[in-house]
Amino acid sequence: MRASRFLFATLRETPNDAEVISHQLMLRAGMIRKLASGLYTWLPMGVRVLNKVAAIVREEMNNAGSLEVLMPVTQPASLWEESGRYIQYGPELLRFKDRHNNDFVLGPTHEEVITDLARNELKSYKQLPANFYQVQTKFRDEIRPRFGVMRSREFIMKDAYSFHADQESLQETYDKMYEAYCKIFTRLGLDFRPVQADTGSIGGSGSHEFHVLASSGEDDIAFSTESDYAANIEMAEAVLVGERAAPTQELKLVDTPNQKTIADVSAFLGTDPAHSVKALLVQGVAAEEGQDAPVVALFLRGDHELNEIKAEKHPLIAVPLTFATEEQIQALGLTAGFVGPQGLVEKGLTVIVDRAASVLSDFVAGANEADQHATGVNWERDAQFTEVFDLRNVVEGDPSPDGKGTLQIKRGIEVGHIFQLGQKYSEALGCKVLGKDGKPFTVTMGCYGIGVTRVVASAIEQNFDEKGIIWPEAIAPFEVAIVPMNAHKSPRTMEAAEALYAELTAAGYDVILDDRDERPGVKFSDLEITGIPHRIVIGEKGLDAGTFEYKGRRDAESVNISKEELLAKIAK
Amino acid sequence: MRASRFLFATLRETPNDAEVISHQLMLRAGMIRKLASGLYTWLPMGVRVLNKVAAIVREEMNNAGSLEVLMPVTQPASLWEESGRYIQYGPELLRFKDRHNNDFVLGPTHEEVITDLARNELKSYKQLPANFYQVQTKFRDEIRPRFGVMRSREFIMKDAYSFHADQESLQETYDKMYEAYCKIFTRLGLDFRPVQADTGSIGGSGSHEFHVLASSGEDDIAFSTESDYAANIEMAEAVLVGERAAPTQELKLVDTPNQKTIADVSAFLGTDPAHSVKALLVQGVAAEEGQDAPVVALFLRGDHELNEIKAEKHPLIAVPLTFATEEQIQALGLTAGFVGPQGLVEKGLTVIVDRAASVLSDFVAGANEADQHATGVNWERDAQFTEVFDLRNVVEGDPSPDGKGTLQIKRGIEVGHIFQLGQKYSEALGCKVLGKDGKPFTVTMGCYGIGVTRVVASAIEQNFDEKGIIWPEAIAPFEVAIVPMNAHKSPRTMEAAEALYAELTAAGYDVILDDRDERPGVKFSDLEITGIPHRIVIGEKGLDAGTFEYKGRRDAESVNISKEELLAKIAK
Repeated sequence: MRASRFLFATLRETPNDAEVISHQLMLRAGMIRKLASGLYTWLPMGVRVLNKVAAIVREEMNNAGSLEVLMPVTQPASLWEESGRYIQYGPELLRFKDRHNNDFVLGPTHEEVITDLARNELKSYKQLPANFYQVQTKFRDEIRPRFGVMRSREFIMKDAYSFHADQESLQETYDKMYEAYCKIFTRLGLDFRPVQADTGSIGGSGSHEFHVLASSGEDDIAFSTESDYAANIEMAEAVLVGERAAPTQELKLVDTPNQKTIADVSAFLGTDPAHSVKALLVQGVAAEEGQDAPVVALFLRGDHELNEIKAEKHPLIAVPLTFATEEQIQALGLTAGFVGPQGLVEKGLTVIVDRAASVLSDFVAGANEADQHATGVNWERDAQFTEVFDLRNVVEGDPSPDGKGTLQIKRGIEVGHIFQLGQKYSEALGCKVLGKDGKPFTVTMGCYGIGVTRVVASAIEQNFDEKGIIWPEAIAPFEVAIVPMNAHKSPRTMEAAEALYAELTAAGYDVILDDRDERPGVKFSDLEITGIPHRIVIGEKGLDAGTFEYKGRRDAESVNISKEELLAKIAK
Repeated sequence: MRASRFLFATLRETPNDAEVISHQLMLRAGMIRKLASGLYTWLPMGVRVLNKVAAIVREEMNNAGSLEVLMPVTQPASLWEESGRYIQYGPELLRFKDRHNNDFVLGPTHEEVITDLARNELKSYKQLPANFYQVQTKFRDEIRPRFGVMRSREFIMKDAYSFHADQESLQETYDKMYEAYCKIFTRLGLDFRPVQADTGSIGGSGSHEFHVLASSGEDDIAFSTESDYAANIEMAEAVLVGERAAPTQELKLVDTPNQKTIADVSAFLGTDPAHSVKALLVQGVAAEEGQDAPVVALFLRGDHELNEIKAEKHPLIAVPLTFATEEQIQALGLTAGFVGPQGLVEKGLTVIVDRAASVLSDFVAGANEADQHATGVNWERDAQFTEVFDLRNVVEGDPSPDGKGTLQIKRGIEVGHIFQLGQKYSEALGCKVLGKDGKPFTVTMGCYGIGVTRVVASAIEQNFDEKGIIWPEAIAPFEVAIVPMNAHKSPRTMEAAEALYAELTAAGYDVILDDRDERPGVKFSDLEITGIPHRIVIGEKGLDAGTFEYKGRRDAESVNISKEELLAKIAK
């Protein structure tokens, strides 16, 4: 490509409404332009990246045996009514009527359509397993689209769906997809982690998210320093460490007027929050329908945070997690901010203690009297509990649940998700095939998504500096830039540039020859902000000396090197 | 690809609701399935073809210097209001509101969006010409979608838009696109014609349609037997042939009671319709605003058909072409069905005669009296006219307007269209750049479309037989099929098939190995209906003899040939 025939729509200024770096740099590098809230046009610089990402995704999906299909963007509402999601999905599902007044939606996902296809096309267990994917435009009517293509309304997904005779077959395909995703993100040149994700009612290893690690990520990922273990912080198990020591202190009551928070109390008493427990009173599950829900008391170490998803997994705790009302607390004779575990079981409450809190001794707790706390509290001697349970978020330094190393926590951007759907959709839509015994059975499904447009943004969130984007080579809009100096005055540099361009292009490199009538500073700045991995400057001096001025995008300085060295630098 | 891992969704029966052959065969070959009226899911067999078509289109657009972009499917209504098309486009434009009650449309085309992009990104004449294309999903809410993907609601277009400083530059890019389109359709392996199309007010060579010739086409294309000349029948000029002979007969009145049509009169009188003229009375243009429109009389040879688009180009004829009312005809003292040219000019009418009618002599015409015709009518002696004009559709055998050969007429399917837009959109949206003189000027635009999904259907309309589709090699889902006989019993044929598969795949062929546990008849039928160009059967006998059983999709019989001959057969 000759730069004079390309659209360099670079911007010197950072646009006002771009909050995150990828959004800023995609605008500044001339990759995208906003058409309307959450709608972006991809300019030539952006499409080149997008197409490279999509090509890698397609190749690896094909290699893994998934078959490409293409389903419509517009979908009949009737299918969504069948699955129950027409109402359930909420206002993010864009609904509209066609000219005949029939109801349609703009597809945010395609489970309904593919299940409808499968129930019509798949007749026998012999056709299983089957795995279909597409790369298609999706629409989600976000209430507040932001972060550019990271959370846009229209976006491109690779979504795949598999169909199986049983769980074992699903697991096999799921594992294949896991491998394919690892290959895809590795080939894309991204630092990523497959992390165990919450599967709701399914449990087990039924869901993994693929996160690109980047400080701007919206999710916290816990991963081991020594093993492959990685999990969304909502899922990472906080294992029990150590044993409870024997009491050494007597229980004492101290006045703590108006000191309600752990921070307040610890500062007031001069103690470490890690040596205190905090109480959370939540709604329990009524023993029988029609009865009032009881209050359940949760106790965590003062420095730990409740993980609501974990709490919701306890059978005695109501879902969604709801805190007890002021009335309920008063009815129990307790005062919010001063609740301790002492005497609660005796009052008939269920008391659930987090693992870390359960091994404390001589700790600080509320005194169950207004403006009073207790020190030297010890489990069993002073306070009973119903059960020990994993209730908290892990923190850095916690042991890894697989026993190898300790946990680190980093932020991640979810770019992929694989999920064992089970029979949720196949049951709702009646997707059955004939078994070996000639009887119909409901198929088991998996689904596998990659946010293609989001991958582009996340690659930037992970790879940039003050000068702009730094592309991984596999998805750079161009791999190599050649800049002839004084091209419009020196036919010599232009000729040498053309010759090198022809040679590298023939060798399979994706090269841009910057033949624009612009100052070198403008060209260098454009090539840096757009993140081209290799830059080769051709000047008179170098031609005399038989050298090329080379600079890798991450290099601080350029170097003058021979042709041979140059080819080694850019070799893939 | 191994057939056992592919989805052969072939159907033995022709689906009821498929009217045209491409729709029938796309369903029967398992390429598409209907999701809802005008909405189709592309199955793996179809996507392979679609992707090959799109790849060829992209390559040639890139080669021609067009830059790929990607614009959203959803577009803000405000842009369509700016261009005036929000109302104008009619109910085919699907309009909807998002969750914030803002108006949007599903894009049937992208002139507004690209012009909005250009007015923001293009600042100077130095950036011109610019040419952008995309391959994107479009939506047109057809009142009656039909013919499968030929006239569906959701479809894929390659649409390109170019921007220019002047008409000369537009013509240059237009010519380049014309060449690129010829390359594309040639590479796709289609028998096509670029035909001059009506450009409305623009005129000249400002628009070409690209038609795939097929008997099921909706358009009539006239093209020369001896040259490249081709035009939509609405556009093809009917040139003047011959000269008017001197009168040899006297004008005679004959009674023709109730004989109103040319066919009736000719049969009644025993004359050739080609020796008669027929009258068409239409609305003219009022001399001054507020006055009644006069009636204009058109005369054509009895065997010719009026071309309304040509008639509308005459400055004295009202647009759109409207026939005179019964009252107007009576006011002139005429009787419909018995109008002749005699005395009309004298009554103050404008009389316009088609070229072919103008060289008749001794012809039959209405007598301007009820139930009477005149024979032996001659121009000038018996009847005056205001002007000779090209008013009729060409017919087979007419001379080609370029003077080379005669015209043939075939049916065509429009798969591409290139169009000089001029300043229609750039003016409406204020798309201006700075000129050399530092002053802003409105850019000139062109647009260039290819119906990617439609190309697939039209390729079938042109290439099929009673056994199914016959793909051009460039877009076949697979180029070669290898069928081992008794594969599940004979490891020998399977091994040989695997070896050949590996060899051909390595050589760059797109091969399917039919390893399914099915009878040969089922496999052969599937491979025929899906149109795979080359079939190689591997049996025990052939292995003993060192030959392969080869059959090209168009061949009547298979032949047993050596490996060398086989490779020559499939060589591209």
